[in-house]
Amino acid sequence: MNSLIIYAHPNPKSFNHAILENLEKTLLDKGNSIKIRDLYSLGFNPILAAKDFEEFIKGNIPADIKIEQNNIDWADHIFFIFPIWWFGMPAILKGFIDRVFSNGFAYKYTEKGPVGLLNDKVATIINTTGGNKEQYIENKFKEAIDITNDIGKLAFCGIKVIEHKYFYGVPMVSDGIRKEYLEEINDIKV
Amino acid sequence: MNSLIIYAHPNPKSFNHAILENLEKTLLDKGNSIKIRDLYSLGFNPILAAKDFEEFIKGNIPADIKIEQNNIDWADHIFFIFPIWWFGMPAILKGFIDRVFSNGFAYKYTEKGPVGLLNDKVATIINTTGGNKEQYIENKFKEAIDITNDIGKLAFCGIKVIEHKYFYGVPMVSDGIRKEYLEEINDIKV
Repeated sequence: MNSLIIYAHPNPKSFNHAILENLEKTLLDKGNSIKIRDLYSLGFNPILAAKDFEEFIKGNIPADIKIEQNNIDWADHIFFIFPIWWFGMPAILKGFIDRVFSNGFAYKYTEKGPVGLLNDKVATIINTTGGNKEQYIENKFKEAIDITNDIGKLAFCGIKVIEHKYFYGVPMVSDGIRKEYLEEINDIKV
Repeated sequence: MNSLIIYAHPNPKSFNHAILENLEKTLLDKGNSIKIRDLYSLGFNPILAAKDFEEFIKGNIPADIKIEQNNIDWADHIFFIFPIWWFGMPAILKGFIDRVFSNGFAYKYTEKGPVGLLNDKVATIINTTGGNKEQYIENKFKEAIDITNDIGKLAFCGIKVIEHKYFYGVPMVSDGIRKEYLEEINDIKV
């Protein structure tokens, strides 16, 4: 299995980075081929610009987008690791979706409406949150994030999300809980 | 009333830009003072970076963030104009929230949890969508966007959203409908 990890956190000492390290180890232990796209380290440009649209209209794909589309083409399983900021993705990852999941690559329009083009892939999302679980469930934040990301972005392109982990309240919980969170990565579906 | 318009669209010939022009005229006609922040034209940097956190921890605010915080301080009423991309904000605007709505400016943590600090302001959100209204209502996309943006971002900071307009299916509807959409801007709550 070809596993692509798309990772978005600015701090290499973060809990998100510890998740990345554990996931990398888990996937290698299970014999998967992996590629890691660390969007901050790459300096990925997240701003979908007028010149991108001009290229798309001409049938061209800007070079930095093409690299990421090739990685997605290569992948059987895409893992996303990111902190929930303002009940959404960090801008650098939101802009990865805006630019890379382009019309004609990730989906196309038909007479019956839009159709996903990435049906041969599955995804796993791993999120950390500042808020606690009760807040996320009672205020429907979790449901809203699932709708906007799992359904509105990935399922829209035909990518089935087979697992979506929320590690809640990371800044507030004990070291013991954080250790348990990391151990969950060892049992992730691959 | 001081009205701040935060605008995010790459194309100056877009329907979003027509909304901006109509809103500007409406606000001036009603005697409001206005400032427009066109994030694409400004080349706003949306990437919340490790160095931003380092500055925040020292009690400093990076210069480009400070400019935007001063504009928000100035405003009584904040208008957001943007297209819905992937059931969220364009990355350039998401990153505006990530960077500008910082801890200590937009909200603070207390023993009872986070508290908004921008309670003296109201907001209006004007969105365009590619999808039609039925899709947005039936699939709960509208509800999810309202939860993640109106509640999760603005109400979290104490900003009451007094109006949230969705102009659905902009690429598909007739010129007559688009004209009606623009006329709605004349009657917007100010």
